[in-house]
Amino acid sequence: MNQAFIYDRTIHFRDTDAAGVVYFANGLSICHESYEASLAASGIELQSFFRGGAIAVPITHASIDFFKPMFCGDRIVVSLIKTLLSPESFQIEYQLFIEGVEKNAIAKALTKHVCIDSITRKRCNLSQELIKWIEFTQ
Amino acid sequence: MNQAFIYDRTIHFRDTDAAGVVYFANGLSICHESYEASLAASGIELQSFFRGGAIAVPITHASIDFFKPMFCGDRIVVSLIKTLLSPESFQIEYQLFIEGVEKNAIAKALTKHVCIDSITRKRCNLSQELIKWIEFTQ
Amino acid sequence: MNQAFIYDRTIHFRDTDAAGVVYFANGLSICHESYEASLAASGIELQSFFRGGAIAVPITHASIDFFKPMFCGDRIVVSLIKTLLSPESFQIEYQLFIEGVEKNAIAKALTKHVCIDSITRKRCNLSQELIKWIEFTQ
Amino acid sequence: MNQAFIYDRTIHFRDTDAAGVVYFANGLSICHESYEASLAASGIELQSFFRGGAIAVPITHASIDFFKPMFCGDRIVVSLIKTLLSPESFQIEYQLFIEGVEKNAIAKALTKHVCIDSITRKRCNLSQELIKWIEFTQ
Repeated sequence: MNQAFIYDRTIHFRDTDAAGVVYFANGLSICHESYEASLAASGIELQSFFRGGAIAVPITHASIDFFKPMFCGDRIVVSLIKTLLSPESFQIEYQLFIEGVEKNAIAKALTKHVCIDSITRKRCNLSQELIKWIEFTQ
Repeated sequence: MNQAFIYDRTIHFRDTDAAGVVYFANGLSICHESYEASLAASGIELQSFFRGGAIAVPITHASIDFFKPMFCGDRIVVSLIKTLLSPESFQIEYQLFIEGVEKNAIAKALTKHVCIDSITRKRCNLSQELIKWIEFTQ
Repeated sequence: MNQAFIYDRTIHFRDTDAAGVVYFANGLSICHESYEASLAASGIELQSFFRGGAIAVPITHASIDFFKPMFCGDRIVVSLIKTLLSPESFQIEYQLFIEGVEKNAIAKALTKHVCIDSITRKRCNLSQELIKWIEFTQ
Repeated sequence: MNQAFIYDRTIHFRDTDAAGVVYFANGLSICHESYEASLAASGIELQSFFRGGAIAVPITHASIDFFKPMFCGDRIVVSLIKTLLSPESFQIEYQLFIEGVEKNAIAKALTKHVCIDSITRKRCNLSQELIKWIEFTQ
């Protein structure tokens, strides 16, 4: 059973736009930060993982739904659940909450990731460390 | 019949990440730029539109699919089609192409927007200028 | 005697660019995050502070020097010292270190901030909460 | 005599923050865009230049002064002057204007760049294409 990974985040001024709330695309950036924290918690070395050596893991799909706005200084909690989709791909589902109000999500997001050979850009199997990460529960 | 609005864009260094390609969430930021250009072409004053007076038009949903990576310096073309969904909401579909290769999209995206009263945050009808923009063809 | 405020930060993928290191302007964004954390630690409510009511506190000058590159996943420490420059302005000096290697800064930065009346945009005196923050030591 | 390179730019929603104006660090990102446009105009291929092969050209210093705020939708003009500092380094001075009001700069910025060997990270001489670019006038 795959338990959620939890990531705490304060909304920064840089995340906001002139409408006074988090700029929509930054909602996905915050989700990606939680993915990075989850990888690091599993022991994956982020610099080489994201720089892309022989294998790269690009995002092929991302979506996000907003139910409430987020403001500078808000303390939020991101809850992340990862699922293997195929030997070559996985997805992550994110729920965002205001800290202390974990009943109603303020946003939900999804990203899909595919393992590819960096040279040929053809799909390949997930590395052992990624499979370990998907099975890893913190 | 709603024709596409066309927006030309060069990929900037700021758009990229350590994997050497456009950071996924910036793909949506580039789409939003084309939305802004489309509003401006219709005569809408961007500063007051996005600062939010009595009415605000937040994004409630965004999604993007990537078929090919984008690199710093790439010249891309964003094609944008807008559709009224209800008296209070509309959506925009985006297709991204490498300039001169307009047969195969390198990414497709979608955003949904809802008109709300800035104070009550309740849904309200689109303004006349937004209806004019949706019907506007350039 | 004004002691430094300390802010811990992990370098995110979003902070990097195609050269594989932190995009230069994001070095200043990270410094600004430490300023926000310092304001919050002093009890200032960030949403209203940065949204700008009667008084706004824009940055009039920013500079940064880089001595070493920062990579995705790096754990860094920002040390921040604030100084009153006049009744209407203050500056913040930042030093960035790799966590555990606090002898040699990897970057140094400076921002200058001026208090203005939001309507007239004329300079005005710092608010009591800002003066308290400048004198505040954590 | 080194003439200025001119870059036209519209302020995007993404550039702004909750105070309703351009986020300070994005002022430098806009300057960097003008540097990229200037390199491209001189015939330099941006993807390989910024990805960093044998030689990299990191920014060692950046500074910016703001005289007036910039708002979403503003049409601005960046004027850029480049100067060789040593066989291994150069600087760029930027002036930002509101389009049509080129008498008073709304911001001024400066970046310093050093050529290094990507492996040893030791300074090395500027490439021929960079020297040509510095001497290049458009």
